[in-house]
Amino acid sequence: MSRYWSPFVKDLVPYVPGEQPKLSKLTKLNTNENPYGPSPKVLEVIKAEATAALRLYPDPNSDVLKTAIADYHGVAAEQVFVGNGSDEVLAHVFHGLFQHGKPLLFPDITYSFYPVYCGLYKIPYEVIPLDDKFQIKIEEYRGINGGIIFPNPNAPTGCFLSLAEIERLLTVNNETVVVIDEAYVDFGGDSAISLVDRFPNLLVTQTLSKSRSLAGLRVGFAVGHPDLIEALERIKNSFNSYPLDRLAQLGAAASFADEPYFQQTRQAVMAEREAMVTRLASFDFQVLPSSANFVFCRHMSRDASELAAGLREDGVIVRHFKMPRIEQYLRITVGRPEDSEVLFKSLQRLLASA
Amino acid sequence: MSRYWSPFVKDLVPYVPGEQPKLSKLTKLNTNENPYGPSPKVLEVIKAEATAALRLYPDPNSDVLKTAIADYHGVAAEQVFVGNGSDEVLAHVFHGLFQHGKPLLFPDITYSFYPVYCGLYKIPYEVIPLDDKFQIKIEEYRGINGGIIFPNPNAPTGCFLSLAEIERLLTVNNETVVVIDEAYVDFGGDSAISLVDRFPNLLVTQTLSKSRSLAGLRVGFAVGHPDLIEALERIKNSFNSYPLDRLAQLGAAASFADEPYFQQTRQAVMAEREAMVTRLASFDFQVLPSSANFVFCRHMSRDASELAAGLREDGVIVRHFKMPRIEQYLRITVGRPEDSEVLFKSLQRLLASA
Repeated sequence: MSRYWSPFVKDLVPYVPGEQPKLSKLTKLNTNENPYGPSPKVLEVIKAEATAALRLYPDPNSDVLKTAIADYHGVAAEQVFVGNGSDEVLAHVFHGLFQHGKPLLFPDITYSFYPVYCGLYKIPYEVIPLDDKFQIKIEEYRGINGGIIFPNPNAPTGCFLSLAEIERLLTVNNETVVVIDEAYVDFGGDSAISLVDRFPNLLVTQTLSKSRSLAGLRVGFAVGHPDLIEALERIKNSFNSYPLDRLAQLGAAASFADEPYFQQTRQAVMAEREAMVTRLASFDFQVLPSSANFVFCRHMSRDASELAAGLREDGVIVRHFKMPRIEQYLRITVGRPEDSEVLFKSLQRLLASA
Repeated sequence: MSRYWSPFVKDLVPYVPGEQPKLSKLTKLNTNENPYGPSPKVLEVIKAEATAALRLYPDPNSDVLKTAIADYHGVAAEQVFVGNGSDEVLAHVFHGLFQHGKPLLFPDITYSFYPVYCGLYKIPYEVIPLDDKFQIKIEEYRGINGGIIFPNPNAPTGCFLSLAEIERLLTVNNETVVVIDEAYVDFGGDSAISLVDRFPNLLVTQTLSKSRSLAGLRVGFAVGHPDLIEALERIKNSFNSYPLDRLAQLGAAASFADEPYFQQTRQAVMAEREAMVTRLASFDFQVLPSSANFVFCRHMSRDASELAAGLREDGVIVRHFKMPRIEQYLRITVGRPEDSEVLFKSLQRLLASA
């Protein structure tokens, strides 16, 4: 604490991202990265732009990228906002689209950055417990609120809520903004982007970090009514005119132009997920139904933190949240088949040593 | 205006960056970009990283880049904060290091993003007029304040304030944070980084967009006491864990490793600036003394907005601020000698057609 800090810095509890270990040779199944690289076309475009052109500012409005996203999702460019990862997009949403005088609602078990944003922008919040099966109970989101947000599929559970349920929520909650955070939707969910033209208070966020294998490039976006997008643009243009560099704008746009690669890699991830689920069950894990590129599971008899530590000894990094209700669960990113081999070999060793 | 906006969005007056025209073949002297590209070593590093590695998140702490900056400037890595352009760094400074209950002080003629940040974070401010020669009068920054900020060299004037004057300010103003925004310092000024070890309330910001020709990559940084840096890290980690992508972190670090290229290009810019100043004087312009990569000048008899419009007809874009005191000035970026040829050919035509 320093006397030079603005008054509220001392109360901030920052988000802690999953570890990015600097050692190589690890089987890194802790931050839900895609095991397959980005489309070769993305890499070509980035290399072609790594020229003297970098001396010039990027397009502050990212028009080429917005158009690529709009065309891909069948919306207008003015329904699209882009940012430096969906985390930056979400920060602006918390700042500009939630009413700060009433509690924001989100699940008790969810993306742990939400309460951090609330701390940053002094937004009160109320958590709504998931049910016993870790499912969102949509009828419990009916209280007075300054906004509603949840990931779909939810994180770290991986469970997907049907669009019919979301529609049911939007029909009754039309006074405040509802944000569906679809970081993982491409691995088996249906996007609520199909609903934005009917509900002016619906904002859908997505990222290129997961299904498009571009965590290292930092691009996320939101789709919604132009009025919602305008609020985000005002915040962004009062914060940083150029959040997306030239390489990120062009690389991200190229990703939407390579549909075959996108389909092939997401199908590979989904197929490997199903194989993992089956095999985890045979190792006495209970696995929540996952529509994401990770599985959330607990062993019937072994302690989760001990398992996580044992896996780490074998160079396998998974995520363990020391939080109420889920302290016996592990979140394991879906990797390539060879990553699963390393994972299960380690589990076999650990479970044999009971 | 929409009922879904948070209460203060409607009052925001966003920053308007200099135009980024989508036509090529323009002589673009309006946003102070460097006419020379970045170091070839930067481009090599970026191309080498445009691989499957982009599927992985970047280092959230940008340790390699912080170390490169710290080593270059002779400070410790914990005295360095990095962000997505110095605009993002400044946003976090306004949020986390200025006291929001007292007026922030900055010049009446200065970087026009400062009042925008004040609007975003609800910070009161008071502008201190430059003197008749457009110089900062440091003894006028002695009132009660929640912080002080100015660019050095100042923008859009290009005028440099000596470190002795800054030291004089820091000696009397030790209760609040003083930020020296050194976007243009490498074109002839001395950096106040040499003072950070003596003044725990001094923060110096710099960017790689100007002297390092990386406007298209979005990297800026701040240097100061570790306590100031910690406040910025807390804000950053409550806003976006990964503001710098993998390409930006490595490319920026490589820039600090190519000192000969840096010296060569900044000397070329400074030499061309001196040539421009001489020639502008011969065209009946008054030119302020510039320590930046632009000149700020007024013609003795011709209207600035007409000149700007005339230059544009010839494909030469300069910046004209329609603001009190400077509405008769043009800010012209220093380009290559061939850019100056185009500029002066157009000016010759315009001035002949009196």
